[in-house]
Amino acid sequence: MKKMLIGLHLGNGYGSSPGAWRFSGVNPQSYTSYDARVQQAQAAERGKFQFIFLPDGPGAIMADIESEAPNFNLDVMMTLAAVARETEYIGLVATGSTTFNEPFNLARQYKALDIMSHGRAGWNAITSSGNDVAANYGKIIPTSAERYGRAHESIQLIQALWGSWGKDAWIHDQKTGYFADKDQIVPINLQGKFVGSRGPLYIPPSEQGQPVIFHAGGSPNAHELAGRFANVVIGAAFTIEDARAQRNAFRESAERHGRNPDEIKYIAGLMTSIAGNRREGLDRRIILTQHLFPQRVSYLQQMLGIPLNDKDLDSPLSQTLLNAARPSPYDPRSSHALKIAKEGWSLRDIIAHGVIDYHPVIAGPGIEPADHMQRWFEAGAADGFWISPDVNFDGIDAFVNEVVPILQQRGLFHQDYEGKTLRENLGIPDQYGVDPRV
Amino acid sequence: MKKMLIGLHLGNGYGSSPGAWRFSGVNPQSYTSYDARVQQAQAAERGKFQFIFLPDGPGAIMADIESEAPNFNLDVMMTLAAVARETEYIGLVATGSTTFNEPFNLARQYKALDIMSHGRAGWNAITSSGNDVAANYGKIIPTSAERYGRAHESIQLIQALWGSWGKDAWIHDQKTGYFADKDQIVPINLQGKFVGSRGPLYIPPSEQGQPVIFHAGGSPNAHELAGRFANVVIGAAFTIEDARAQRNAFRESAERHGRNPDEIKYIAGLMTSIAGNRREGLDRRIILTQHLFPQRVSYLQQMLGIPLNDKDLDSPLSQTLLNAARPSPYDPRSSHALKIAKEGWSLRDIIAHGVIDYHPVIAGPGIEPADHMQRWFEAGAADGFWISPDVNFDGIDAFVNEVVPILQQRGLFHQDYEGKTLRENLGIPDQYGVDPRV
Repeated sequence: MKKMLIGLHLGNGYGSSPGAWRFSGVNPQSYTSYDARVQQAQAAERGKFQFIFLPDGPGAIMADIESEAPNFNLDVMMTLAAVARETEYIGLVATGSTTFNEPFNLARQYKALDIMSHGRAGWNAITSSGNDVAANYGKIIPTSAERYGRAHESIQLIQALWGSWGKDAWIHDQKTGYFADKDQIVPINLQGKFVGSRGPLYIPPSEQGQPVIFHAGGSPNAHELAGRFANVVIGAAFTIEDARAQRNAFRESAERHGRNPDEIKYIAGLMTSIAGNRREGLDRRIILTQHLFPQRVSYLQQMLGIPLNDKDLDSPLSQTLLNAARPSPYDPRSSHALKIAKEGWSLRDIIAHGVIDYHPVIAGPGIEPADHMQRWFEAGAADGFWISPDVNFDGIDAFVNEVVPILQQRGLFHQDYEGKTLRENLGIPDQYGVDPRV
Repeated sequence: MKKMLIGLHLGNGYGSSPGAWRFSGVNPQSYTSYDARVQQAQAAERGKFQFIFLPDGPGAIMADIESEAPNFNLDVMMTLAAVARETEYIGLVATGSTTFNEPFNLARQYKALDIMSHGRAGWNAITSSGNDVAANYGKIIPTSAERYGRAHESIQLIQALWGSWGKDAWIHDQKTGYFADKDQIVPINLQGKFVGSRGPLYIPPSEQGQPVIFHAGGSPNAHELAGRFANVVIGAAFTIEDARAQRNAFRESAERHGRNPDEIKYIAGLMTSIAGNRREGLDRRIILTQHLFPQRVSYLQQMLGIPLNDKDLDSPLSQTLLNAARPSPYDPRSSHALKIAKEGWSLRDIIAHGVIDYHPVIAGPGIEPADHMQRWFEAGAADGFWISPDVNFDGIDAFVNEVVPILQQRGLFHQDYEGKTLRENLGIPDQYGVDPRV
């Protein structure tokens, strides 16, 4: 029976909730603590997660800096280097933009991580799309065509650099003094419209050959890029229908590029607030997000098309309001928000359900995320999930202790790692040499 | 009494001799071994070295790849990230070129290393000058004026990004929910001719404020750049006179830029083959470099202006040849080579003395490097030394066990680390905020 994959979202060290840094028990200095990152990755490894996933996108931070931590790692590669030597099985996946990085630098660093982790590196290859990011490079953001043009060239070039040493090129025979087989090391000599490189890189293959390509995004450009290059897609969808449509779009794109669609895994997002029961889960989320309630009430108004009073958070919505409500066609979360509202929860609790978060939110006991994941997985909506605990400090352990065993018992998640490389644990083939497809 | 500084050259993991990878006892896979790098850094820390220094310059590798390892780390920042968590005091200095890197990326990564190491990071800020390096970026090398223009802008901009969070900007008060003080976090808004950035960075100060700037080079451009920005210069000189002239040039440049010349430390290179006596030291070097003898004999011919026979390595040079020899004015090592030849060593032993290496070479017992270092230090030729052991596997320990105690006994080298940050251990002030000089 096919099993699902699970990844852990590892961001600023506190967790995915904006209030996580203040939560009870959390070290307020986790933002700069590599110890915290290592402990969190180790917790996920204890739960047999296939990978940790580090988003990135060095944009503006000033808007919320007085009350919230920046969303990102200080530097994704430095975090993964720290984690690499203190874990053994879990995949290490960092986001790296092709827009403001030289391909040779990206190639070198991800391949070095792949060596250091003994074949556990993954590269989430994305383009940067914000002018706030571009401003940090003293530039304006290129057009979408330019960004994706450069991304295609960059990935092709980087895979070629990774493959520039053949599988057996590194001889290192002390007796004969033969260090490497020159015939198995090829300059790549690629020059595109946007980027170029002569190569070769000077790094031999890792235990998995070379890093795994991930991609995050849902646009037609993303389908095209991932269908050509990626083995894993980091997705974002609010409903089974949307996730299934996205997953199919990526699979079809892989097929158009002559690949087996099973070589591309669609991973849906899920945010968890695990607690003894629903009430405790909601209370936990209320503590975490209370400073955001006024703006979230205002946003919920637009989603439902009805006036709401942020001074009266304790009452459920009146029947009159509920009858008048119309889910906004511009926000895919609106129908779910209305469904929750109709269950009779107070305004505070409606929002605490996470109806305005970036991914589906489960607040409650471990069986609820397990049920959600099973439903999506069996409906063909996802090959796996990337989990964003509200607070990393206790939220990773809670998932590992309370959700993972249920999934394992149901036969939906592996009992242990299949191997020591990311490719083995994702079930995708090793890759050596220059990719013949490109 | 003023003490000297000592750094360890950490390159490909084998050592500075081209034959190090084949040497007895060496793990031939050290090239890809982060364990080896960590052990070597730990050995240097046991010897109270102030820093490890990682050169870089991702150029061509094909010429010697059949018999020699590439000279560099797979990736300098990944190496230092590995070392950072497994050492406590030693400074971590990586070379990073401003020519083919975006300043924002450099700023972020070195500052993350500074946080991770609790204030032990240094950046050797250089320009790339080889077309073989440029080719890996699909480019040709810019002119010297362009390279140094971009370097000046980049360092200024990076120091501003590092300083964009004031010393006390990061509040992280869980009770009040006050994460950071917006008034102490300043966008930098620098736009030069070559590079620009809005900022701010999103990383608070480290225990030493921000990383220390190093520079390597000896040209007038290097004097100017280092005099303006650097606290440490990684030098290369073959004689006391040359080293003293270089050191003075950097000190004068610092003064021209309104700085105290003692804030810039000139570090001379030294290669060591430590052995029980001179004969054993030479034999060790013969084993390490024997595959290079034909080309080195040919090079020595040019240095001395006399014909030499690489089929007769066992004989000393005849008196006739010695009388005819004229040291080449184009190679600063030539006089020393002739001096050794006149001592009556065989042709093999002359070369084994290291007369054609990148730095002065000492082959012999620990007291010899100690004497050399004392002589240079007391002559005002250097503030310290960066040591390139022939073979890291045993050469670092040999230096630590046999040279360091002599220097300490003579009062020339510290008994223990002064503090836990690189600035404390180099004796230079912490730096916070945007540098007022730029």
